[in-house]
Amino acid sequence: MAAQETKTKAASFRLEGLTAAVFTPFHQNGDLNLDPISAYIDCLVKDGVKNAFINGTNGEGWSLTMAERKQVAEHWKKVNNGRLSALVINVGASAVRESQELAAHAQSIGIDAISCTPPTGYKAKNFVYVKLMLDTLVHFGLCFEGNSPESSRNSFLFLSSVSDQCPRDRFNGSILGRSAEEPYSYFLWMKFSSCRLYELKRCLQRPEGYQICSGHDEHLLAVVAIGNYSFIGGTVNFQAKLFTKVMEAYKRKDLEAAEKHYDQFVINCSILKKHGDGVPICKAIMKLSHMDLGPCRSPLIKLSPEEEEALMVDLQQSGFLDSVK
Amino acid sequence: MAAQETKTKAASFRLEGLTAAVFTPFHQNGDLNLDPISAYIDCLVKDGVKNAFINGTNGEGWSLTMAERKQVAEHWKKVNNGRLSALVINVGASAVRESQELAAHAQSIGIDAISCTPPTGYKAKNFVYVKLMLDTLVHFGLCFEGNSPESSRNSFLFLSSVSDQCPRDRFNGSILGRSAEEPYSYFLWMKFSSCRLYELKRCLQRPEGYQICSGHDEHLLAVVAIGNYSFIGGTVNFQAKLFTKVMEAYKRKDLEAAEKHYDQFVINCSILKKHGDGVPICKAIMKLSHMDLGPCRSPLIKLSPEEEEALMVDLQQSGFLDSVK
Amino acid sequence: MAAQETKTKAASFRLEGLTAAVFTPFHQNGDLNLDPISAYIDCLVKDGVKNAFINGTNGEGWSLTMAERKQVAEHWKKVNNGRLSALVINVGASAVRESQELAAHAQSIGIDAISCTPPTGYKAKNFVYVKLMLDTLVHFGLCFEGNSPESSRNSFLFLSSVSDQCPRDRFNGSILGRSAEEPYSYFLWMKFSSCRLYELKRCLQRPEGYQICSGHDEHLLAVVAIGNYSFIGGTVNFQAKLFTKVMEAYKRKDLEAAEKHYDQFVINCSILKKHGDGVPICKAIMKLSHMDLGPCRSPLIKLSPEEEEALMVDLQQSGFLDSVK
Amino acid sequence: MAAQETKTKAASFRLEGLTAAVFTPFHQNGDLNLDPISAYIDCLVKDGVKNAFINGTNGEGWSLTMAERKQVAEHWKKVNNGRLSALVINVGASAVRESQELAAHAQSIGIDAISCTPPTGYKAKNFVYVKLMLDTLVHFGLCFEGNSPESSRNSFLFLSSVSDQCPRDRFNGSILGRSAEEPYSYFLWMKFSSCRLYELKRCLQRPEGYQICSGHDEHLLAVVAIGNYSFIGGTVNFQAKLFTKVMEAYKRKDLEAAEKHYDQFVINCSILKKHGDGVPICKAIMKLSHMDLGPCRSPLIKLSPEEEEALMVDLQQSGFLDSVK
Repeated sequence: MAAQETKTKAASFRLEGLTAAVFTPFHQNGDLNLDPISAYIDCLVKDGVKNAFINGTNGEGWSLTMAERKQVAEHWKKVNNGRLSALVINVGASAVRESQELAAHAQSIGIDAISCTPPTGYKAKNFVYVKLMLDTLVHFGLCFEGNSPESSRNSFLFLSSVSDQCPRDRFNGSILGRSAEEPYSYFLWMKFSSCRLYELKRCLQRPEGYQICSGHDEHLLAVVAIGNYSFIGGTVNFQAKLFTKVMEAYKRKDLEAAEKHYDQFVINCSILKKHGDGVPICKAIMKLSHMDLGPCRSPLIKLSPEEEEALMVDLQQSGFLDSVK
Repeated sequence: MAAQETKTKAASFRLEGLTAAVFTPFHQNGDLNLDPISAYIDCLVKDGVKNAFINGTNGEGWSLTMAERKQVAEHWKKVNNGRLSALVINVGASAVRESQELAAHAQSIGIDAISCTPPTGYKAKNFVYVKLMLDTLVHFGLCFEGNSPESSRNSFLFLSSVSDQCPRDRFNGSILGRSAEEPYSYFLWMKFSSCRLYELKRCLQRPEGYQICSGHDEHLLAVVAIGNYSFIGGTVNFQAKLFTKVMEAYKRKDLEAAEKHYDQFVINCSILKKHGDGVPICKAIMKLSHMDLGPCRSPLIKLSPEEEEALMVDLQQSGFLDSVK
Repeated sequence: MAAQETKTKAASFRLEGLTAAVFTPFHQNGDLNLDPISAYIDCLVKDGVKNAFINGTNGEGWSLTMAERKQVAEHWKKVNNGRLSALVINVGASAVRESQELAAHAQSIGIDAISCTPPTGYKAKNFVYVKLMLDTLVHFGLCFEGNSPESSRNSFLFLSSVSDQCPRDRFNGSILGRSAEEPYSYFLWMKFSSCRLYELKRCLQRPEGYQICSGHDEHLLAVVAIGNYSFIGGTVNFQAKLFTKVMEAYKRKDLEAAEKHYDQFVINCSILKKHGDGVPICKAIMKLSHMDLGPCRSPLIKLSPEEEEALMVDLQQSGFLDSVK
Repeated sequence: MAAQETKTKAASFRLEGLTAAVFTPFHQNGDLNLDPISAYIDCLVKDGVKNAFINGTNGEGWSLTMAERKQVAEHWKKVNNGRLSALVINVGASAVRESQELAAHAQSIGIDAISCTPPTGYKAKNFVYVKLMLDTLVHFGLCFEGNSPESSRNSFLFLSSVSDQCPRDRFNGSILGRSAEEPYSYFLWMKFSSCRLYELKRCLQRPEGYQICSGHDEHLLAVVAIGNYSFIGGTVNFQAKLFTKVMEAYKRKDLEAAEKHYDQFVINCSILKKHGDGVPICKAIMKLSHMDLGPCRSPLIKLSPEEEEALMVDLQQSGFLDSVK
């Protein structure tokens, strides 16, 4: 099957609305804890989240063993029961052959789509890495609709993280630009985490281009004004309601309300940044605002009781907690 | 006079609407050519520009001798006759004593305000540089309302360029962040050229902070959605009308029109980038769309006839020319 | 066992002379090929190489599955039979738990020492990552002399890559400097791949500090003049003889000979750089000068026949081939 | 006169041995103080310094007005009386026309050679800047031997600072590499401040290339081993004697003595770095070890009495003071 054909088929799959880059629950000793996942899904659905992105950076996927990555994928699939619209599994690994193994496993358990974030080790070569991995996946006939006609939604999806936090020599503007001119045949979907919104707009101006999902939470209102309503990220886990308020106010042209909610949204982001950002702080906020998913795994370090208390004070005083419930 | 007091007085001065970072006209041999300036002002005013920022990067201020910088300032002042609301002179120089001399000169000819973009050579020390220059200016009693009661608008203004194109160790997010917490007493005004709109929003959330002017043309609609309507830049010289269309459509909540005009605006920006961006391309566009201001001065190189012709084709085919007239 | 005590014991282990960061042989289809390893060891020993560093970047360790990494380690151990003095296994992995598993395996098969190059994904947190991994290793009593009294040389070793090619926010000068002041209790050994030789000298000035091994081949003579005679790297695989000639000439104060051999050495390095550097080019040189170890594994790409031919021409004309035999 | 011809003539000029990047003396109020310059020259000559590089970064040339830069040049020329072999004036300025004016002035007063360090503002365009300035200088027939036959040594010299501290996009390895392949016709001389000694060696391997002067003091012994004995820099002002001891010991193959003196040299450099490096610390060391040249000019800040006292303690305890006298 030619790549273009594959793309056309797979392109019918869309990641719409809010996608939570979900956390992986652990026991206090760092072992996997699958039990809370079902209640976690309830929590997400109740707040308006549509999809889950599993085993990514927020899910500490890089700290899981191969066996654990499969266990986590299987459990989300097993307990979801259609509550979330789509489950996306990140199969990025430093060894291409391990990515292939994870992709085949995802296919076999009926996961909706995979993504493959490149390992950070190959720097400027990431583009090459992804191409090779995808070529190999196609060669083995994995993960494409065409190969599993009975599964109506099993499609291929690639999540490329275009981010300002990335080293300069990775997926920078010029690479993105080049992609925009000749979109890579397997790129069906792209996470846009850069604050270069001009480039986001340029992507959106190409109807035949990738599906774009914004990964820059804190620019929510600006991104919406640019014309993008699809978001993925870690804060979606706990402030999905506020995301929705901003977007809906904008859609109904109540710009005052949009700006008011976005004001709180920006304050929330500033609290996160003040306390250090990252998975440990997000997991602490989850615990304080929604549900306890346990600590982080090494090498990440969970907040100390003192740090958690200081965080709680700020969450209350800034209006954060009220705004996300 | 204490700094705080000075600030309070000077703060009554506002740079509102569109400010063109104006070009300096040259003869073909690179000598100054002051003649076109009066017609240039007509051109700007007709398109809706409110203020001019003179001898900055777009004005090739760093390539002018001290004598020329004064000549340019004097000529703009002499021929303006109130057509533009405010004339701002950049007095940044690599030698602090030369900045002081330019500031005193600006004061003496009745310029509305000065700015002092730091020389790029001191990198991380720019903040210190600016502080020292300002302390010295205050010490000598220059450029402040309080010292020239008869001149009702002569105020102090500092233009800090917060830009992503800057080396990382200059005015980056964290320095800006720190400023946002304890705004520098002389910073009355800030050019925000970063695409980190979240930080722009954080600045806007502080009513007692700096006046903010956005310098990132291509993010126009996103910046407007964030709540900022003040722009400065090089493309203001030729696409001021399109700036205005986007902003007015947004103000009257005609979001479809805002997005439509912004679509063309983004296409215009992409033409600029395609042809190399910078002063040479902007001066060529001025010539092709509005009026001829001559070549650039060394070390910048003007477009070749072939480059200019290729540019003209794109300006016509993309709708650029129609959109800016 | 206290960290300091552990260090004292393990510190008796020394990596002396030339250490080859060895390549992993593959079949044409990318599968592991263990067969050539024994002859490869002969080849290294004959050229004067003392130790092998296995499963590092040159060994494409990040592209091997867990099972393959163990297989490779076992095979080197099985066929070495004391020919090489020390076998060091890199156990770095993106998941700490996988590093722990690889460390335990290395211990169980009697490997001389391990290293743990941090995954590149955690950037500024690498230091923290390493600390946590090491703390855990100590906790589980792995890889230390004290725990296996019968194995007289099984010691702990940490290979930290201090490199200019690294992103700025990893192991940079200041972190190294801090280490130099308060050397990290588990750092027994450090690969110094930076060209900041001043810092190398500072490290050498501390007799109680780490054992230092230089990883910057092309600065050979300068490093030797600074006082360091221990080298690790990829080019050790094929130009060990030239390394030795430079070092021995310098030791006997025949500075003209040292400079003459270093001149050729530098020419050799320039050929490498001209053809792209990295594992693919090094494997091609191995094939043309010593022995065929097969292609690279995806995502790396082996040289095309044309590229290989162009390389061969340069190797012959520059005196490279003659100099390394 | 063709560029190549010019180069051939000018190439007879050589900057040999130690060149001090001299400081500019100021009064306490920041005004120029030319009086100490004659005694300063005595001091340099006594320590073995051969040449002076004037109005560079160490001379705070970028903080001097045009008039002051000329005054400084004239005074050094007037009082030198052949004590120093060559006086080099830096004419780099942000405006090309000012560089041209300074170059013509240097020619007119019989300065031995000029350099033109590019302004930092043009970043990646520096190469272009330099080319244009040089083309213009040639056009005007300035500063070349051929134009002033009576002045036997007045030659052209370009000082390009190849430095690791520079932003990545300036004069980096690849640009240098390109230069090494097709040496720029006007580059007669190059300051090599990078620690990439491999590239320095590559330059030295081209006899027809630039004259190279190392600007990385702290790598002294390594640079000497590589084959370069010409140094320029700020610490030459006060530790020229130690430079000489290292170089002479190496020349007579007394490698133990070379290493011993270099050990102290490295300790001296570490004291500099500990106290902040840069012009303020160097001027303080000059005062404590040789002679008082006054404070720095804004925006640089001289050491406080407390900082100076702490520095003095370290200079004494580390053997610094004894080693430089």
